Amino acid sequence: MSTSPLNGDPAFDAAKQIALAYCRAWTAKDIEKTMSYVAEDIVCDAPGGRLQGAPAFRQFWADFMGMLTGSQLIAVFGDEATALMLYDSATIPVERALVAEYITVQDGKITSSTMVFDQTPFANYRGGAQAGFNAAQT
Amino acid sequence: MSTSPLNGDPAFDAAKQIALAYCRAWTAKDIEKTMSYVAEDIVCDAPGGRLQGAPAFRQFWADFMGMLTGSQLIAVFGDEATALMLYDSATIPVERALVAEYITVQDGKITSSTMVFDQTPFANYRGGAQAGFNAAQT
Repeated sequence: MSTSPLNGDPAFDAAKQIALAYCRAWTAKDIEKTMSYVAEDIVCDAPGGRLQGAPAFRQFWADFMGMLTGSQLIAVFGDEATALMLYDSATIPVERALVAEYITVQDGKITSSTMVFDQTPFANYRGGAQAGFNAAQT
Repeated sequence: MSTSPLNGDPAFDAAKQIALAYCRAWTAKDIEKTMSYVAEDIVCDAPGGRLQGAPAFRQFWADFMGMLTGSQLIAVFGDEATALMLYDSATIPVERALVAEYITVQDGKITSSTMVFDQTPFANYRGGAQAGFNAAQT
């Protein structure tokens, strides 16, 4: 994980600190803690489509946590308002799912999230059936 | 694009500066300039598989440039040895392809690249035929 020499200055890397706390929360499968960093009006663009609002985002994470077996943060960078993360998640259907997530933060809450991952291995596992990680498509 | 107050210190953000120059080069479809930032023994992990060495990496970019119609850098962060980028590329088959790329840099050259993107829209376009962006699978 990369660190900045200005790591200790909250004004400089507020979004990065939120990103780290948010990652720790979902890795621990703590949905309440995860959502404590999320704004009510969050907009999330994921490969399966757009999720609008905290309830839809909560459902996305709850579904994902249900199949999560582990996750490693490869990199996190951020400044006062934005952060970009790369993590390697192990899930029941897909052993190694690389996910990049770009967040914007206002007043300590994540107001937007852009997620990038390859849907292919999840689709191969599903074989056309519904699966939680892809809830944005339903 | 996020900038760091230490932007001017080459020792601090050498990898970020390489990332920016590399992005400018491939966005301009300048394959020679692009490859000037790449180590001979680069290892690239892409959704389609692993690319080993500069010739395979060059072919990947040449194929991608062949269908690239535009690209916008959404975010770039980096330090002295690593950088993480998010860009939104417009291509002939896929209007909006979000790509995250994580690079490691040694002695001014990119020695590893991890790319994350959703293969689904490219596969839908291909309909099973070969396409350049997915050269890693061939």
